[in-house]
Amino acid sequence: MLNQKLERLHTIDREQFHLEKAQAVLQWDQETYLSEKGVDERSEQLALLEGISHAHLTAPETGRLLSELGCTQENPGGDESLPDLQRDFLKTLYRTYSRAVLLPGDFVSDAARAEGLSQAAWVNARRNNNFPAFLPHLIKMIDFSRRKAVYWGWKDNPYDGLLDIYEPGMGTQAITEVFTPLARELSSLLKKIAACPRPDNSFLQSEYNIDAQRSFCNEMLGRLGFNTQRGRMDISAHPFTTTLGSDDIRITTRYLPQQPLSSIFATIHEAGHAFYEMGFPAELRGTCLADGASMGIHESQSRLWENVIGRSKPFWEGMLPVLRSHFPQTLPRTTPDEFYRAINLAEPSLIRIEADEVSYSLHIILRFELERELFSGTLDPAELPAAWRKKMKELVGIEPETDSDGVLQDVHWSMGAFGYFPSYALGNLYGLGFWGQLKADIPGVDALIAACNFTPIMEWLRDRIYIHGRRLQPSALFKTVTGKTLSPQPFLDYIQSKYADIYRL
Amino acid sequence: MLNQKLERLHTIDREQFHLEKAQAVLQWDQETYLSEKGVDERSEQLALLEGISHAHLTAPETGRLLSELGCTQENPGGDESLPDLQRDFLKTLYRTYSRAVLLPGDFVSDAARAEGLSQAAWVNARRNNNFPAFLPHLIKMIDFSRRKAVYWGWKDNPYDGLLDIYEPGMGTQAITEVFTPLARELSSLLKKIAACPRPDNSFLQSEYNIDAQRSFCNEMLGRLGFNTQRGRMDISAHPFTTTLGSDDIRITTRYLPQQPLSSIFATIHEAGHAFYEMGFPAELRGTCLADGASMGIHESQSRLWENVIGRSKPFWEGMLPVLRSHFPQTLPRTTPDEFYRAINLAEPSLIRIEADEVSYSLHIILRFELERELFSGTLDPAELPAAWRKKMKELVGIEPETDSDGVLQDVHWSMGAFGYFPSYALGNLYGLGFWGQLKADIPGVDALIAACNFTPIMEWLRDRIYIHGRRLQPSALFKTVTGKTLSPQPFLDYIQSKYADIYRL
Repeated sequence: MLNQKLERLHTIDREQFHLEKAQAVLQWDQETYLSEKGVDERSEQLALLEGISHAHLTAPETGRLLSELGCTQENPGGDESLPDLQRDFLKTLYRTYSRAVLLPGDFVSDAARAEGLSQAAWVNARRNNNFPAFLPHLIKMIDFSRRKAVYWGWKDNPYDGLLDIYEPGMGTQAITEVFTPLARELSSLLKKIAACPRPDNSFLQSEYNIDAQRSFCNEMLGRLGFNTQRGRMDISAHPFTTTLGSDDIRITTRYLPQQPLSSIFATIHEAGHAFYEMGFPAELRGTCLADGASMGIHESQSRLWENVIGRSKPFWEGMLPVLRSHFPQTLPRTTPDEFYRAINLAEPSLIRIEADEVSYSLHIILRFELERELFSGTLDPAELPAAWRKKMKELVGIEPETDSDGVLQDVHWSMGAFGYFPSYALGNLYGLGFWGQLKADIPGVDALIAACNFTPIMEWLRDRIYIHGRRLQPSALFKTVTGKTLSPQPFLDYIQSKYADIYRL
Repeated sequence: MLNQKLERLHTIDREQFHLEKAQAVLQWDQETYLSEKGVDERSEQLALLEGISHAHLTAPETGRLLSELGCTQENPGGDESLPDLQRDFLKTLYRTYSRAVLLPGDFVSDAARAEGLSQAAWVNARRNNNFPAFLPHLIKMIDFSRRKAVYWGWKDNPYDGLLDIYEPGMGTQAITEVFTPLARELSSLLKKIAACPRPDNSFLQSEYNIDAQRSFCNEMLGRLGFNTQRGRMDISAHPFTTTLGSDDIRITTRYLPQQPLSSIFATIHEAGHAFYEMGFPAELRGTCLADGASMGIHESQSRLWENVIGRSKPFWEGMLPVLRSHFPQTLPRTTPDEFYRAINLAEPSLIRIEADEVSYSLHIILRFELERELFSGTLDPAELPAAWRKKMKELVGIEPETDSDGVLQDVHWSMGAFGYFPSYALGNLYGLGFWGQLKADIPGVDALIAACNFTPIMEWLRDRIYIHGRRLQPSALFKTVTGKTLSPQPFLDYIQSKYADIYRL
């Protein structure tokens, strides 16, 4: 039996869970159904709920109970006689609580105000290709981020403190070690591909009816295993996944008539996030442990489904007839192999969110290296546009003509979200590590995929990854699942072999 | 300039407004998009927000500020040197605050628990036609309601205290005075109609495609003047209107293939509620005064649009060609006059929510009379089924064979919502009172309606009714708009003349 203090903390945590999900409902609605003129007041509603939620988490009672249960910075899991599950619960709650209470109230509200101004300035600066107009805001955002990390105790290495928000336990050094060989090999592969003839994808440029796209995406979602009793798919400008309750996981996609791949791969990508959220075990339900291990691990799930499964030849051996049944007139009689080549073109490009599997990680590595230099003090923010162009040339082989297509393209820095980008590329690396183990454990997985039988994959992911929720840090989870430490090699092996086939290298 | 205390109360009120709208978002989502398995946790989220909202409203600071501004039970508007708008604000806030603080915490949670059990028992009792199984819960609900009224100071006449929740200022006596002649005249009209030949409505029984119903309802909604930049229409099992923000008013309808009138009149009815909510003036925005004057006044708006406008001959002179353009094959070449007769059948029926314009108010009067006797102690709850059958025979002329079609048909009593029903019939009376004034002020309103030009009606309603928000009590609002006190006569004149025409009496 749990003692009373622990029970009380569970009640506080469960209320916190509900408060966060209530905010998620309002945010989901804002992105999907809220009418134009309702946006301003919705922001006020969300700010109020955020304040209530923050006050609830940081109430003195929470700190007192955590301390009475023996939680400290050195031993966040508290009393060592407690069961592992309870220690993991305390550890996670303690970390969240500490992060929140260590920031002075004034600092939080100053930072929020500055972020609002910074985002508005970024929107204008990007529109007008005017980096100097954004620079003073960027400098402030760097300063707030640095101070935040210092408040949390990362005085000597603030960038590590920021990385730790998104990838607990992964610091600058560990990431540099995996990104360095990754950058070298991917740049080299991209150059080799550029010298080869380009597969034909012209049939993807015509008009694909939106109702038919929608019916295909919904059928595919069902075949992948998405449980519509516990979730749904809607439409939004930028596809996303959000959890509004333990049994209420929602994804969105978007339909563009001339770009059928956009809705298809957004659907698969978000389904991968949703499967993770739907798969946490009952014992973690409604607690702070019912969450992904990290941003990168979450991204490993979406990218595994989108790229490793969804952009594979076996997948389209099974799914192309289904797609054709929704587009009997539009889709030519391409073979699965031709379709597979057409959806896997790789070439240097300027914009991260449009990049292919080969170049995507290079866009991330560029951002990581610039952030690292900004926080170590070796790069002056005023020099960012030039540094961006130089690194793009080195890594991807091309340069943007404007800052809008370069250093101003992403929203992240304008929100002070430094340390976030690496998670995207780490997701690729975690994902291929997991995939290697899955293939060893499930012989003939390609044949299962070609038969649209995803159940064994889903069960494996559930039993090996989802089951841990947020109990393990990413590196511990990776070790538990694969027996290994993180390395770029499985991803490099996969991408080199895939593209050697596609481009007949 | 407002003094600091008043400003602080405005901040508290604005936060309260946001908290209530946030709950409305979660409730709207529950009725429209929430997946099956998400319902339980949504209830927990809503209960938590309700608790936070109640604690926020009843915080000691609110009471202290109200008292310092001179608000008392006798003078809820406070300091008489304040501008009228501020006194109306204080009056409304004080009433809401007092209602909330006068109920002891234990009473509120006991009542909430009992309501949950009572509703579940009612669902089963209705399904199994088992009134005795529901009786003990009903007795408890009556008792909780009586005690609630007593806590609020209505010791000698608790039913008046309950009526006052929904129709401030309208008591048993005032309602009895208007309901008595109404019952007599409507019963008599219903008998006369029963002796006449029934207009043909067989063409409404065929299959009306749901997509076409939806496109018609959306076109009609636009023609009525619904602003989709400030609201939207979705689908739910039971149509409703809800306000999620000052510029975010949402309605729902439902589509039944064999009952095209269901979606059409639900759309018009809910649009009438929405126009009211969209029409409050800027000076009341985001305050407790941005609300309807009462349930009955709100219902006057929905019923005015649905019945007086939407079931009129001029309306279908304008709208029938539009409807036909959505159902070129399905809808026969009926004239507007034939269509008008077909949608206005009147006949005795057992179920309130399916009743026509003539018999609807009789269903309400029956419930009002039973409630009045229950609370005065002259009717034993155990005798309700027999009393129900007797009154149905007297008022409507028929009797239910089962209690499920009789005393068990409505959810209201199982939730303890005694005093709610009269508002529905009062809505008819307010509505026709307003309509008389509107017709005097806008000559040729029938021609405007037949031309689908609803702007002058909308502007009149906005300038005469919506503009007051919740500042005036219903009787004061009625007097301000019409110069008269409430009487059943305008409604009776309207209904007798309309049905004399339809049934050629």
